[in-house]
Amino acid sequence: MTVAMLVEQEFEDSEVISTKDLLERAGLEVVLVAPFVGREYRGKKGSIVVSDAAAAAVKAGDFDAVVVPGGHAPDRMRMRHAMVDLVRDAFTSGKPLAAICHGPQVLISADVLRGRTITCWPSIAIDVKNAGGAYVDRPVVEDGGLITSRKPDDIPQFVAAIVRAVRSADRG
Amino acid sequence: MTVAMLVEQEFEDSEVISTKDLLERAGLEVVLVAPFVGREYRGKKGSIVVSDAAAAAVKAGDFDAVVVPGGHAPDRMRMRHAMVDLVRDAFTSGKPLAAICHGPQVLISADVLRGRTITCWPSIAIDVKNAGGAYVDRPVVEDGGLITSRKPDDIPQFVAAIVRAVRSADRG
Repeated sequence: MTVAMLVEQEFEDSEVISTKDLLERAGLEVVLVAPFVGREYRGKKGSIVVSDAAAAAVKAGDFDAVVVPGGHAPDRMRMRHAMVDLVRDAFTSGKPLAAICHGPQVLISADVLRGRTITCWPSIAIDVKNAGGAYVDRPVVEDGGLITSRKPDDIPQFVAAIVRAVRSADRG
Repeated sequence: MTVAMLVEQEFEDSEVISTKDLLERAGLEVVLVAPFVGREYRGKKGSIVVSDAAAAAVKAGDFDAVVVPGGHAPDRMRMRHAMVDLVRDAFTSGKPLAAICHGPQVLISADVLRGRTITCWPSIAIDVKNAGGAYVDRPVVEDGGLITSRKPDDIPQFVAAIVRAVRSADRG
């Protein structure tokens, strides 16, 4: 079972590093998908990761879930068509689609929030509402295949929800 | 003639430093308004400014215009009610209200974009549209009292438009 985790410059360090670690400990393979393959991406606090795949070279069908971390990275991701397309394709094909912190900015750009309830970092709650979504302040929110969380503190519950969704889809 | 310039942590350095310098050279006084008075605020590239006033202690009527710089600062400003209220009050009282780069995020939070045409950093264009505004890609856009620009390269035209608007209001 394989999860695509989107990365871009200035990601929230723990939302990539800790989330990836916890997903791998749960037995999932994590593929770091970025605008470019084999490139270094640096977190806000200096963590460095190397991308495994270019977004334009993969499709949602290659993965069992797509995860969008936060930080300043989503502000960059949403200007990359291949990144936004991957998120939209995951949603329309019914794959679990997870986003934390500012990650839902990419969901807004993919226009997948209409009629959906999610959580996120509070600064973008109004953008979520304007995009047709409903915002609630909870550690993790699951609405259909959409799994969302607010901040690094929520990572354990965020990962647990992703793992449950992937296993459930695998059984289903 | 006095301009309120909003500041918060992680502002885009030139959009505060150069914009302030050019406004002052044009004969305007610039008051740095922040959530707290007398506090240091640091730009993304390390510039440090000290705030002159707390947003809760001033009102739009104290100024001839309000300017919202960009960077990561607007993401923080929009979570401060007094900052958002100052922007809304400037708009409703017909003062020139200027924003550059990510600055229009605060205009979204103040809900002043319905039916208005603006420009901004392209990543938030969809948020502007979802907030009822129209987005165009031009160095400076003036719609009624709203003056907007896209990025640091636009600062000279951005400042020229602010200065014209303030002088025009002063004569009017």
